[in-house]
Amino acid sequence: MNKHVENIQSDNAVALYAMNAGEGPHSYVQNSTYQKGALDVAKAILEEEIATKLDIKTPNGYYGIADFGCSTGHNSFPAMQIIIQALNKKHKHHQTSLPKTPEFYVFFNDVVSNDFNTLFSSLPPNDHDYHAIVVPGDFHGRLLPESSLHFAYSSWSLQWLTEVPKAVADRNSPAWNKGQILYTQDEKEVYEAYLSQYGKDIESFMEARAVEMVDGGLMALLVPAVPAVWNPKTEYTVPCDVNLNLGSCLMDMAKEGRMSETKIDTFNIPYYVPTPPQLKEILERSNDSFTIERMEILNNTAGKHTVGTINARAAFFRAVHERLLADHFGSEIIDELFDRYMNKLAASPVFLNPDNDKTIVILAVLKRKARRH
Amino acid sequence: MNKHVENIQSDNAVALYAMNAGEGPHSYVQNSTYQKGALDVAKAILEEEIATKLDIKTPNGYYGIADFGCSTGHNSFPAMQIIIQALNKKHKHHQTSLPKTPEFYVFFNDVVSNDFNTLFSSLPPNDHDYHAIVVPGDFHGRLLPESSLHFAYSSWSLQWLTEVPKAVADRNSPAWNKGQILYTQDEKEVYEAYLSQYGKDIESFMEARAVEMVDGGLMALLVPAVPAVWNPKTEYTVPCDVNLNLGSCLMDMAKEGRMSETKIDTFNIPYYVPTPPQLKEILERSNDSFTIERMEILNNTAGKHTVGTINARAAFFRAVHERLLADHFGSEIIDELFDRYMNKLAASPVFLNPDNDKTIVILAVLKRKARRH
Repeated sequence: MNKHVENIQSDNAVALYAMNAGEGPHSYVQNSTYQKGALDVAKAILEEEIATKLDIKTPNGYYGIADFGCSTGHNSFPAMQIIIQALNKKHKHHQTSLPKTPEFYVFFNDVVSNDFNTLFSSLPPNDHDYHAIVVPGDFHGRLLPESSLHFAYSSWSLQWLTEVPKAVADRNSPAWNKGQILYTQDEKEVYEAYLSQYGKDIESFMEARAVEMVDGGLMALLVPAVPAVWNPKTEYTVPCDVNLNLGSCLMDMAKEGRMSETKIDTFNIPYYVPTPPQLKEILERSNDSFTIERMEILNNTAGKHTVGTINARAAFFRAVHERLLADHFGSEIIDELFDRYMNKLAASPVFLNPDNDKTIVILAVLKRKARRH
Repeated sequence: MNKHVENIQSDNAVALYAMNAGEGPHSYVQNSTYQKGALDVAKAILEEEIATKLDIKTPNGYYGIADFGCSTGHNSFPAMQIIIQALNKKHKHHQTSLPKTPEFYVFFNDVVSNDFNTLFSSLPPNDHDYHAIVVPGDFHGRLLPESSLHFAYSSWSLQWLTEVPKAVADRNSPAWNKGQILYTQDEKEVYEAYLSQYGKDIESFMEARAVEMVDGGLMALLVPAVPAVWNPKTEYTVPCDVNLNLGSCLMDMAKEGRMSETKIDTFNIPYYVPTPPQLKEILERSNDSFTIERMEILNNTAGKHTVGTINARAAFFRAVHERLLADHFGSEIIDELFDRYMNKLAASPVFLNPDNDKTIVILAVLKRKARRH
């Protein structure tokens, strides 16, 4: 690792949120079918919303589309294609006053440490009818010029927090998350601290997009969520699996003297997965700038079944969490940790059946209100 | 190398033009001081031109600056900083009707196969006051929206041709370049074929920028060139060094049976280095859209002296040519080839003295004319 990357990482925890690079067996490219499952379901909704709700008076001769949290592009390219085809159809039928075929610019965004080389090398060279542009940086801040964006998209990205809530890492706080690597609903203070951070971060995201989007532009957010009520004896969710199974493997390693428990106490995964009412309440905070056009739960059964084996599930978790874990615990523990995780899963009948995974995906479609001039 | 990269490369020769990746001993980062030399001289001129010539009526709330051919960013970042500081100064003094501090967007462009990860990791995280955006693709075509660019910059990049002139690679053509890896002024047909391709490619570049630039926007091009007359007995230029010394090392290897001569006959380096009158004539072809505000030869003595040792000169050539050479001849010959090149240099008193390098750098400043509406 070179000096500059070290600097970025010490300056900015967000640098560690990049998914696993490249196209190898542990890469995000090879292990993100879970996240892709919902896109197939979202397709018809995106097409319908663009056809009926998009309301752009001045497309500046081009359409700007952005994917906030594109990773290495594998799940992003098909989403962008769906959106562009729908915009093109809409443009042809409803914007007849515009003389020429519009140009499409796709802004691919992810954190600076993301593996953009893999994204570039995966771009089909002649098979896409848009200009590809990359915008590196934290999407909780401004990234694009004012009124440059006609369609904003983000899938499986808004769960990432700008930082671990401070109270959670503070041993003098009632929200100190001792012995755990993520919140649970049982630890109220920890849970509230995570939720509060999540709300603040989504608000920052919406504020930045409110500037960047044109009046009448649309935003589609695919957000992982959990039901408000589910049965932990017979069901599970992604955060619960991470905390319970991955977390307990770390604790087992600590008990065997492989690491100190303090090392685990000081590690907290910086994401939060809301319930649908929580997400709705948070999105409504931006109602000065946006109307919520649609919010619905997508069926991700197909995605869940792609990680129906122990190996696939471990690879999916590894592609997402490896950088964070390796940065804190050292890369030498990673293989062992995921071996232990697989053994733990093998002994857990509830977690072995993907139909018990109650994690859901919410598709929220929002529209930029007209600015008051 | 993955399948997608292979596809890009077979589809598009331009993919091979990327400079050596990373930050290691053979990287462009470590071996591009020659090219940087002229920037220090250009600084005062860029500042003066922006102060006196830039004439933008509607900066859309932001300034767009692009570097076409940014490579891994090492030489690009200081150039962008100079331009932004000058734009900021100009903005403060002359655009007082604009209420707020403008935003700056820098579009870093290079071919898709460029090592953008190194560019991203080298971006000073808190030390630049612009939004960094990456635009991958061949700059001979359109890359950015209409009227989105206020300042276009390109340094040491326009010499790259979109392809080797077809006649040069055709054994039935009078311009067939047998036994050579680049044009020489002695082979008139070869030379004319290269010059003709160069002219067409610069025209394509200018046509694309004419659409992308705002009325009154400025363009600064740092273009490697050679004097119309120089003495090959006591002086040399970069293309002459490449053809004579690097080319003859390849021929030596062929004579020793290390490769076939046909392999050399079918290899031609796709760049051209013009004389000042040639460049002027070519730029004037775009006078429907651009006025030439300034054209002058920069003193690159400092740059030349950074490659004053045999090792430094070989490393500079290797960082630029390795991908092209390795793609054609195989990566296994590269170390030997540059060892031979160093031996050849050591035996060539003329080439050992950087003061004999008559390669020059032209700074051309052009201004986008107002569009007729």
